[in-house]
Amino acid sequence: MRVSKLYAPTLREVPAEAEVVSHQLMLRAGFMRKAAGGIYTYLPLAWRVLKKIERIVREEMDAKGSQELLMPIVQPAEIWQESGRWDVYGAEMFRLQDRHNRCFCLGPTHEEMVTTLIRGDVRSYRQLPLSVYQIQNKYRDERRPRFGLMRGREFIMKDAYSFDRDEAGLDKSYQDMYDAYTNIFTRCGLNFRPVEADSGAIGGSGSHEFMVIADSGEAEIVFCTSCDYAANVEKAELFPLEAQEEAMLTKEEVVTPDCKTIADVCAYLKLPVDHSVKAVAYNSEKGLILCFVRGDHEVNEIKVINTCGVIDLEMATEEQLAAAGTVGGYMGPVGIDNKKVIVVVDATVMKMHNVCCGANKEGYHFINVNPGRDFTPTYVADIRLIQEGDPCPHCGGEVSKARGIEVGQVFKLFTKYSSALKATYLDENGKEQPMVMGCYGVGVSRTMAAAIEQNYDDNGIIWPIEIAPYHVLVVPVNTKDEASAAKAEEIYMQLKKVGLETVIDDRNERPGVKFKDADLIGYPLRVVVGPKTLTEGKLEVKIRKTGEIRYLPLDGDYVQDIKNIIAELAFSK
Amino acid sequence: MRVSKLYAPTLREVPAEAEVVSHQLMLRAGFMRKAAGGIYTYLPLAWRVLKKIERIVREEMDAKGSQELLMPIVQPAEIWQESGRWDVYGAEMFRLQDRHNRCFCLGPTHEEMVTTLIRGDVRSYRQLPLSVYQIQNKYRDERRPRFGLMRGREFIMKDAYSFDRDEAGLDKSYQDMYDAYTNIFTRCGLNFRPVEADSGAIGGSGSHEFMVIADSGEAEIVFCTSCDYAANVEKAELFPLEAQEEAMLTKEEVVTPDCKTIADVCAYLKLPVDHSVKAVAYNSEKGLILCFVRGDHEVNEIKVINTCGVIDLEMATEEQLAAAGTVGGYMGPVGIDNKKVIVVVDATVMKMHNVCCGANKEGYHFINVNPGRDFTPTYVADIRLIQEGDPCPHCGGEVSKARGIEVGQVFKLFTKYSSALKATYLDENGKEQPMVMGCYGVGVSRTMAAAIEQNYDDNGIIWPIEIAPYHVLVVPVNTKDEASAAKAEEIYMQLKKVGLETVIDDRNERPGVKFKDADLIGYPLRVVVGPKTLTEGKLEVKIRKTGEIRYLPLDGDYVQDIKNIIAELAFSK
Repeated sequence: MRVSKLYAPTLREVPAEAEVVSHQLMLRAGFMRKAAGGIYTYLPLAWRVLKKIERIVREEMDAKGSQELLMPIVQPAEIWQESGRWDVYGAEMFRLQDRHNRCFCLGPTHEEMVTTLIRGDVRSYRQLPLSVYQIQNKYRDERRPRFGLMRGREFIMKDAYSFDRDEAGLDKSYQDMYDAYTNIFTRCGLNFRPVEADSGAIGGSGSHEFMVIADSGEAEIVFCTSCDYAANVEKAELFPLEAQEEAMLTKEEVVTPDCKTIADVCAYLKLPVDHSVKAVAYNSEKGLILCFVRGDHEVNEIKVINTCGVIDLEMATEEQLAAAGTVGGYMGPVGIDNKKVIVVVDATVMKMHNVCCGANKEGYHFINVNPGRDFTPTYVADIRLIQEGDPCPHCGGEVSKARGIEVGQVFKLFTKYSSALKATYLDENGKEQPMVMGCYGVGVSRTMAAAIEQNYDDNGIIWPIEIAPYHVLVVPVNTKDEASAAKAEEIYMQLKKVGLETVIDDRNERPGVKFKDADLIGYPLRVVVGPKTLTEGKLEVKIRKTGEIRYLPLDGDYVQDIKNIIAELAFSK
Repeated sequence: MRVSKLYAPTLREVPAEAEVVSHQLMLRAGFMRKAAGGIYTYLPLAWRVLKKIERIVREEMDAKGSQELLMPIVQPAEIWQESGRWDVYGAEMFRLQDRHNRCFCLGPTHEEMVTTLIRGDVRSYRQLPLSVYQIQNKYRDERRPRFGLMRGREFIMKDAYSFDRDEAGLDKSYQDMYDAYTNIFTRCGLNFRPVEADSGAIGGSGSHEFMVIADSGEAEIVFCTSCDYAANVEKAELFPLEAQEEAMLTKEEVVTPDCKTIADVCAYLKLPVDHSVKAVAYNSEKGLILCFVRGDHEVNEIKVINTCGVIDLEMATEEQLAAAGTVGGYMGPVGIDNKKVIVVVDATVMKMHNVCCGANKEGYHFINVNPGRDFTPTYVADIRLIQEGDPCPHCGGEVSKARGIEVGQVFKLFTKYSSALKATYLDENGKEQPMVMGCYGVGVSRTMAAAIEQNYDDNGIIWPIEIAPYHVLVVPVNTKDEASAAKAEEIYMQLKKVGLETVIDDRNERPGVKFKDADLIGYPLRVVVGPKTLTEGKLEVKIRKTGEIRYLPLDGDYVQDIKNIIAELAFSK
C-alpha cells in the first residue's frame, strides 16, 4: 500500500467531540469517522485491525468446535414477547415497524433468535452438544453514547451460544469458551485478566468477564496480591468481618445536631466509625429498600439487586422515606417495619455490638444498638462493596484494585431461555428435557479501542503487532533523491514479497510530517531510507513500542532481520 | 468436519413456503432457516459458501485498488433529506426513531453515507481517484418478500463507490469494476453475462448488469446471435423500423363493433397487424400518458419513464381516459390534446403509413391515419420492448432472449450525489469541482442463490467447486465394519492434511440416507469407503456434477488423484 493512495486522512487537531484517548487517536489517525451519535464508519486502517481481531476470534472459536453462522440483525418482536424480554428491555432496544406495521427490533443480543432456531432443528440428545457463533453488528440505543467505540450504539460483537444436555456438559462448554477467550486476548497482544463477574438473577458462579487492564476502563476490578483471585468489584464476595466480643449495653437515643454524614456523627459522639452503621435508601419496583452497612463501608448496588430480586434501583425520595417512617441523614434499622419496607443489612453489621445508627428522626441517633436484639432485617446478606485491602475471599490475602475495559464475557444461562422458549430435546429415555445453555460474547470493535487505551503515548497509537493494521512503514526521507527513493521502493517490494504487510510513504512531504503520521497511526516498525542509508550502508529501523532504533546492514539479509524483529515483538507485553 | 457434529439439518419434505428451487433446496439441505418474511439465518454450510464468495469479491476489489471499509447500517435521516431521497424512497425503506425521536433508516444503499464521508476527508485533486467498498447487510422492505434469498428484506451486498476528478477518470474506474465483476463471477464458477442496463434518469450508456443465466431468473435479457451485444430488455435500444413507401390515403372513421383487442380490429377490418397502432395508457405524477406502438409491438415501461422523466407508472383509470376525451379499447392519437395529455409515440409508428388506430369513441376506429399529417405527439421516442428476432442495435443481426438473475450492477452516477451533497474538490487551478462518482454492487447472498438456480438436479444442489461449502465428502458405508471405517477415517485425515475441505459422514445411518444427504447438500466429490474398497483396493469417487464414478487405486496417490479431479472441475462450466 502507498500512503499517497491510502484512505487514512490524519488530523492535526484533537477533535473536540472525543473524550477518551482511543476515540481521539482513531479520529486523528484516520481510523474512523462519526456518522451519528455512537454510530461510526470504520476507515480502511480500522477495518484491517478489525479483520485481524475477527480472524483470531474465528480461529479460536473453530478450534473449540463452535460453528459459524449468521443470524438476522432485524428480529421479529414475537420471539422477544415469548421470552418475556420485549417489555423488559426498555429504551435501550432499537425498535421499528415494517410496512405492514409488524414490530421488529435491531438485535442487541441473540438469545431469543438462536434458541428459537435451535428448538426447530434439534430434537435428540444425539444432536447435542452444539455450539454456534456469529460476528455481526449489535445495537443498543444508549441514553448517552460516548467514548467512541467504547460505548457505541452500533458495534461489532462475536456472540456464541452453547447447547448441552446437562450442567456437566455446560461446564465443559463454558471452560472451552473460557480457554478460547484466554487465547483470543493473548493472541491480540493485550494485557488482560479474566475476572469473576456478576451473573445477575441467574446467580451462582456462572460468569467471567475478560478485562483489558487500562486506567481509562469503566469497570473496577479487584485482584488478590497473594493468589490468582480476580473479580469485578460488582461481584467480589466478602465474608462478614468479625467484631470483638463486647457486652451488650442499653440502647440510648442521643441528639446529633447538624450531623449530616456518618463521619460527622462519629466525630460528634467521639465513636470510632467502625462502631457505626450507615444507610442508603433505594426505590425499586418492589418498593423502598433500606440498606445498612458499617460506617466505613460502601453499598454494592448489584448485590442489593440480586439479594432483593429487583430489576433496577433508583435513589429514594424524601417522601418515600417519610412514608416509611424515617428521614434522610438519620435512617436506622430500629423500628422500621420489615414487612412494609425491605430492610437489607450487610452480614458484617450483624456481627457488630453496641453500634451507633440513625434514629429515624431529624437530629437524633441511637447508640448501643445491637443487631438481632434491637432490629430484624428482611435480608441479611453480603451487600458491601469490596475495598482496597479487604481480605481475598479465596485465600484471605489482601486485595488490590485496578481498572479494566470489558472486552469479553462468558455466561452460564442454564435453562433460562430454553425453558421460556421451549427448546427441549428427548434424552436417552425419550423424556423431554430443556437444553442447558451458555452464551459468550467478545466486543470486537471495543477490543480495538481497548488495545489503544492500553497502548499509546503522546505521539499516537502503539499497536500490538498482532493486530496492527500493517507491520512496517517504509519512509523515503526525500522522494526527490532518486537513488535513495529507488532503494526505498526496492525495500518496500522486498518486504511485501515475503508477506510482510508493508506501506511506503511515497508522498512528497517533509520527513517530519511523515514521521508524525507514522507515530500517530502506530506502525510497529518504521524503516527510514535516505541518502545516508546508501552512503553508510545501514537501514534505520525504529521500533514504535520501545522507541529503540536499530541499524541493519544493507548488504546483509535485512528482510530476515526485520522478520526477526517482528517475531520478537509478537506476544511481548 | 464430521456430519455427526455438523449443524446442517436436512429435511425430507419440500417446505410449502418455498417457491423457487434455490429456496427449497437451501431449506431442505440445511443451509438456511426463516426468521421472518424475507429475513433468514444462514446456517454453517451457507455461511461457508458466503465466505468463499466474499473472499473472491475482496480479492478482486483489492486487486483494483478499491479499499475496504465499513459504514453504518443505521443511517441518519439528515443525509437522505439533504440528497432529497428521504421522501422519494417510500415504503421500501425501513425507518426507525431512536430514544430521542431522531429519525434513521436501515441503509438500502450507501450513496448518501459515502458521499458525506468523502466530502469531509477529500479536498484536493491529489487525493483522487479514490475507490472504497464494503460487504454488509442491506435492507429493503419489499412489499412481498419472496423467492428466499432472491428477494429478501435483509441481504448481503458488496457495494463500492468510486470518486474521480472527471469523466475520463470515471470511465477508467467503471472499466476496472466491470473487469473485477467479470473476474468475480467467473471465479464463482457461474455462467453469466454482462448486459447493458437501464441507467434511469441519469441516462447514457452508464450501466451494466451481471446476469447469471437461469430459467427462473426474474430478468429478461436479449443477446445478439451474431455479435456480443447483450442487454436487459428494459434497456435494449431499437432503431425505428422502416415501412414501405405508400401514398397517403384519406383518413376514415369505421365502425368496429365488439372489437376489444387490436387483433380483433385487424381481423374485422382485414388489415395486417403491422398496419395498426395500439395504445397503452398510464397515470403518472405528471398526469396521463398515452403511449402508441405498432399493433404487433409491446410498450417498454422503463423507456416511457425515462422519456417522460417520471418516477413511476400505474395503469390509467376509465375516468382519467374519459377526462382526456378517449375510452379504453378505442384509444388513438388523433384529436388528443398533446398539451393536456402526454402523447408518446414509438419512433417506428412515425414511419408508418395509412394505419388503423382507435377513434377515441366506443365502437369506432380510424383507418388511413398518417402520423405527422393526422396527429402530433408530445414525444417521439424508442418506447417499444425488444422481441425475439428483432434486429441487434449494434450489428443488425437477430437477437435472442434468455432469463437471468441480476447478481451485480455497475453504474455511472456522474455528479448526481456529489452535486446534491456538495462533495467537491479543488482542481489544479484551485477551482472547486464536484467529484465524479460511480457505484458498483454485488448481491453476495443472491449470488449464492443464483448459483443454485443455475446448478441443481432432482436430487439436490450441484455446487460449483469454487464456492462449494466443502470439496469432498467421505462416506464410510458401514460404520460397524471396523476395517473399512478405520480406512475411511484415514482417508478423511489424509485429505484434510493437504488442505482439502473434507467432511466425513460418521453417522450410524444406512448408506442410502447418507447418499441422499450428500446429493442434496451437493458436495462436489463423494468418496465411498466400504468393505469392498479394501478387498478390491479401489476407492469409489463420484462426481456430483456429471454423475461420473471413477475408481482410484488405493495403493496409488489417491490424494493427488482427488486433487486433480478438483482442479478439473474448477472453472469448467
